[in-house]
Amino acid sequence: MSEKVVVVYSGGMDSFTVLNTAIKNGLDVYALSFDYGQKHNKELEVAAQVCRTLGVSHKVVDITAINSLMANSSLTGDTEIPEGHYEDDSMKSTVVPNRNMVLLSMAIAYAVSLEAGKVYYGAHSGDHHIYPDCRPEFVDAMNAVSKIANYQSVEIVTPFLYSSKGDILKAGLSMNLDYANTWTCYNGREKSCGKCGACCERLDAFKEQGKTDPLDYEV
Amino acid sequence: MSEKVVVVYSGGMDSFTVLNTAIKNGLDVYALSFDYGQKHNKELEVAAQVCRTLGVSHKVVDITAINSLMANSSLTGDTEIPEGHYEDDSMKSTVVPNRNMVLLSMAIAYAVSLEAGKVYYGAHSGDHHIYPDCRPEFVDAMNAVSKIANYQSVEIVTPFLYSSKGDILKAGLSMNLDYANTWTCYNGREKSCGKCGACCERLDAFKEQGKTDPLDYEV
Repeated sequence: MSEKVVVVYSGGMDSFTVLNTAIKNGLDVYALSFDYGQKHNKELEVAAQVCRTLGVSHKVVDITAINSLMANSSLTGDTEIPEGHYEDDSMKSTVVPNRNMVLLSMAIAYAVSLEAGKVYYGAHSGDHHIYPDCRPEFVDAMNAVSKIANYQSVEIVTPFLYSSKGDILKAGLSMNLDYANTWTCYNGREKSCGKCGACCERLDAFKEQGKTDPLDYEV
Repeated sequence: MSEKVVVVYSGGMDSFTVLNTAIKNGLDVYALSFDYGQKHNKELEVAAQVCRTLGVSHKVVDITAINSLMANSSLTGDTEIPEGHYEDDSMKSTVVPNRNMVLLSMAIAYAVSLEAGKVYYGAHSGDHHIYPDCRPEFVDAMNAVSKIANYQSVEIVTPFLYSSKGDILKAGLSMNLDYANTWTCYNGREKSCGKCGACCERLDAFKEQGKTDPLDYEV
């Protein structure tokens, strides 16, 4: 019997690559997505479609209620999504307080329920300087608590922790993954905006790999 | 200006004592309760009433959606609440997978939003052997991750981590707290059942202090 694992899967490029890596490694994958009221919930539709195609179990947890605790993020509130690169100070408004600890806590709960020993999670080096809860120190600390918080120990596995977005894309392309089946843009319109931090980073990754992004853009 | 803190407050004896301790210490208290579909949601009504009386900010977060991740706990599912003491093996069915990591993650998110530096949480020694996520090792590990998960460091404060339920009651009685304003029973009926693990533990604590519990019991 193959090993049961939970994959935190947003529908974006990184977790799409993690999901496919886990499947190709023969793991018994349970994908988990979160509806936290994101403007870009198109990524959830994409995620559901991908899991149907792959024949993988997919659960979406509605955690919009926790937005009442999170007053200041532009990803869920009334503030406009800032344009430009993640390097800019304005991008700090896309930080949902403590988001990854909340999401990983639930993924660990799911793993305990399923008696799965591992949670796969697509943290990567490009996020380290802007999102404190994407850094290796955070993952290490979460792993320490995840080992002892339940009768059963759960390990958080981050295959791309030290990879750039470009590295992840390269890994996925070498597996012949089709990135038309992903969604990245923070604005949830029909086409990707091409201007938000997420789009800029994605387009840079494709450029770095000398490839054309299969998604349609407004610009 | 007094220091802002979040208090995880269920409406039970322990967190009621923590809440009042924080208030008496002059802290600016933001109480936070969780509706996770518990059968004993009478504790949430009691919590709301107490906060109104004390004039303290009180937020209830509905996290019932996460029950879809938690298949095996008798506190939220169809299984009957087991009778008897926590020592019994049957009480393991009252464990909601990874509950305290999920709740603390949200409390930390709330603290970050409020720019509060501390989360008060009523873990005590009586829970250590049955709930892995009530042990000092768990609190230490959560504190380590809580320090680094956000731009702002949040400390988890557990004033009763090494106290028994009796010790907590003793502390509260010495502050003249009225434990009629608490709810403990896992069954949400009009009177406390007097038979579930939570009731047994509560009644033992009162007995230990040579006091009579002001709540009404079915038995």
